[in-house]
Amino acid sequence: MLKDAVTFTLKKTDPRTKARRGTLHTPHGDVETPVFMPVGTQATVKAIKPDDVARLGDEGCGLILSNTYHLYLRPGHELVKKAGGLHRFMNWNGAILTDSGGFQVFSLGPLRKISEEGVKFQSYIDGSTHFFTPEKSIEVQEALGADIIMAFDECVQLPAEYRYVKESVERTTRWLKRCKEAHKTVETQSLFGIMQGGTYDDLRRLSAEQIVELDLPGYAVGGLSVGESKEDMYRVLDNCVDYLPAGKPRYLMGVGTPDCLFEGVERGIDMFDCVIPTRNARNGSVFTSRGPLSIKRSEFFDDFTPLDPDCDCTVCRNYSRAYLRHLFKSNEILAAMLLTEHNLHFLVRTMEKIRKAIEEDRFPELKKEFFDAYYHSGTTARV
Amino acid sequence: MLKDAVTFTLKKTDPRTKARRGTLHTPHGDVETPVFMPVGTQATVKAIKPDDVARLGDEGCGLILSNTYHLYLRPGHELVKKAGGLHRFMNWNGAILTDSGGFQVFSLGPLRKISEEGVKFQSYIDGSTHFFTPEKSIEVQEALGADIIMAFDECVQLPAEYRYVKESVERTTRWLKRCKEAHKTVETQSLFGIMQGGTYDDLRRLSAEQIVELDLPGYAVGGLSVGESKEDMYRVLDNCVDYLPAGKPRYLMGVGTPDCLFEGVERGIDMFDCVIPTRNARNGSVFTSRGPLSIKRSEFFDDFTPLDPDCDCTVCRNYSRAYLRHLFKSNEILAAMLLTEHNLHFLVRTMEKIRKAIEEDRFPELKKEFFDAYYHSGTTARV
Repeated sequence: MLKDAVTFTLKKTDPRTKARRGTLHTPHGDVETPVFMPVGTQATVKAIKPDDVARLGDEGCGLILSNTYHLYLRPGHELVKKAGGLHRFMNWNGAILTDSGGFQVFSLGPLRKISEEGVKFQSYIDGSTHFFTPEKSIEVQEALGADIIMAFDECVQLPAEYRYVKESVERTTRWLKRCKEAHKTVETQSLFGIMQGGTYDDLRRLSAEQIVELDLPGYAVGGLSVGESKEDMYRVLDNCVDYLPAGKPRYLMGVGTPDCLFEGVERGIDMFDCVIPTRNARNGSVFTSRGPLSIKRSEFFDDFTPLDPDCDCTVCRNYSRAYLRHLFKSNEILAAMLLTEHNLHFLVRTMEKIRKAIEEDRFPELKKEFFDAYYHSGTTARV
Repeated sequence: MLKDAVTFTLKKTDPRTKARRGTLHTPHGDVETPVFMPVGTQATVKAIKPDDVARLGDEGCGLILSNTYHLYLRPGHELVKKAGGLHRFMNWNGAILTDSGGFQVFSLGPLRKISEEGVKFQSYIDGSTHFFTPEKSIEVQEALGADIIMAFDECVQLPAEYRYVKESVERTTRWLKRCKEAHKTVETQSLFGIMQGGTYDDLRRLSAEQIVELDLPGYAVGGLSVGESKEDMYRVLDNCVDYLPAGKPRYLMGVGTPDCLFEGVERGIDMFDCVIPTRNARNGSVFTSRGPLSIKRSEFFDDFTPLDPDCDCTVCRNYSRAYLRHLFKSNEILAAMLLTEHNLHFLVRTMEKIRKAIEEDRFPELKKEFFDAYYHSGTTARV
């Protein structure tokens, strides 16, 4: 049997919660978990150079996400393959995970049509018609060459009827089998399965049982943060993470605000991704240890303190709120660049602190400290 | 008598041309000349971080330009002063030159009204009315705190009537006297005078005689590249540079395409600035040793060679034309970032080569080599 490209070492589980400390071994380096993955949708993490991404946090960032759907449409996976793969195309030497395109295709709503075979959809760029199947998604992801590739699944918008979610779970399993069958590059790329099931615990269990049977190198919890409340998301996670095997990495898709990172880790999640840190940065909103902050506010006009007095990133060490507000109000690209760097550093650094706390049996204490400052300081947390 | 903040050492003059090799000594470090200054209009060189600006070329970039007019309107010079000055506000440890606002105010056309006292104009941001005088420009520039500050002059749009240009030259001299009178921070900031006179050689001589009499630490050639042909500009420069004292630095304002840098240096110019490298980069156009190139062109879709095979910048070492075209077509901010870095590196590096050639008595040969490749290679020079 061929050796999986990506393997996982579970190093420790917190004695009081389900928080886990592990290492993902990938063809492009080891990645310490729990980990937050910056999103590089179109073969670039928006508004930051790859060498600056690699330098995020104290230990650096070694794993990013990119999007099959977007790259398939532009510039096309054949081009990326011709370039020598995504790592080389975008000058990123760390590990990459590509999603399958499922989420994006299903987000199109009336612009897509689903069948057992796959999904027909229209390009957001030129309106042209495309057909994605499990086999096609794997073909595209193999051409892109990411270390971790994701199953082509159906991500159901919540709330959703039980009957529809059940049908969808079963189709997602059939599609996963077709993905696994189609996937040939197991020694250089690892396929992760995706659990669905909406907010129905028995369907989550059903989905998990079916996909775990395929013995894949990792599993994701999909179909959350898609319309339900955070309480519902946490309630679903409370149970469903346990349906996944302890020895494999667990990835909570599309989730990554600071509060969700702590809640997810506490429930046994190892990997996260989210566009919010980069998107919010471009809209002038940043995370700080004392809660989120909008740089647009007029009170920052002559505030010469850093974005976050507790942050050690290059932005907080070198630039004032007054300057960053000036850049933002003046529509300067440097505003997006610096706010993006801060937000990503903040999350990467938070995950470093979480990893250290798990190692030292203080994860619950760190979570309490973080939340106390994040929600209750009230002195600088102004959105 | 107080010591000037900025002094100039003329180290060598090319034996066959007027090209000069010198050093500007500023409160924020020595700057080797001839030098190209990147433009940081709103307290940022657009789409590049200051630490990346400082690393441009092989030797780094130590002098940038910023704009009095823009910073006066937003965020206001009082705020910049309160921040500790422009260097600190924008996190730039090198030297800065601020223009006087004259050029921008006069570019407003019908939105400004000129009198002996100064110029009334409307803000491009909110339409509010403002009045700039020589004294006001100096007050604002002293608040900003640049190493080199510029005289408040009238920059006449070309072509222009002899009579009007003569009046304007004389008013510019009267304003320069008022600038010098108002300028108090001579030990930390040096005031440069600006020669005007349009395309009329006798008016250039008149202007030069009048401003040189004031014995300032440096002089600029203003009022060029404002509507006249390049041939006219070079013809004017052929003579007028000689009207300025050899021992003082000479700055050709607003000029900085590769060809103009060589032509200016050949005529005895020491300093240049231009928005074209940064603006063109954001529009997808770059300089290369084989001529300008537009990254938008469809032929670059699968071109995996660098922007400029002869360039050693981080962009040319790490990214292909195909990738940069993909970023540009996808409206990614990283396109502006990388193309800006390349363009600025190209000019800073070209100036380094020019300085070395002057030292080694090969400036004319370098110019010929550069122009031969830039205009006649035809293999990759495609705009």
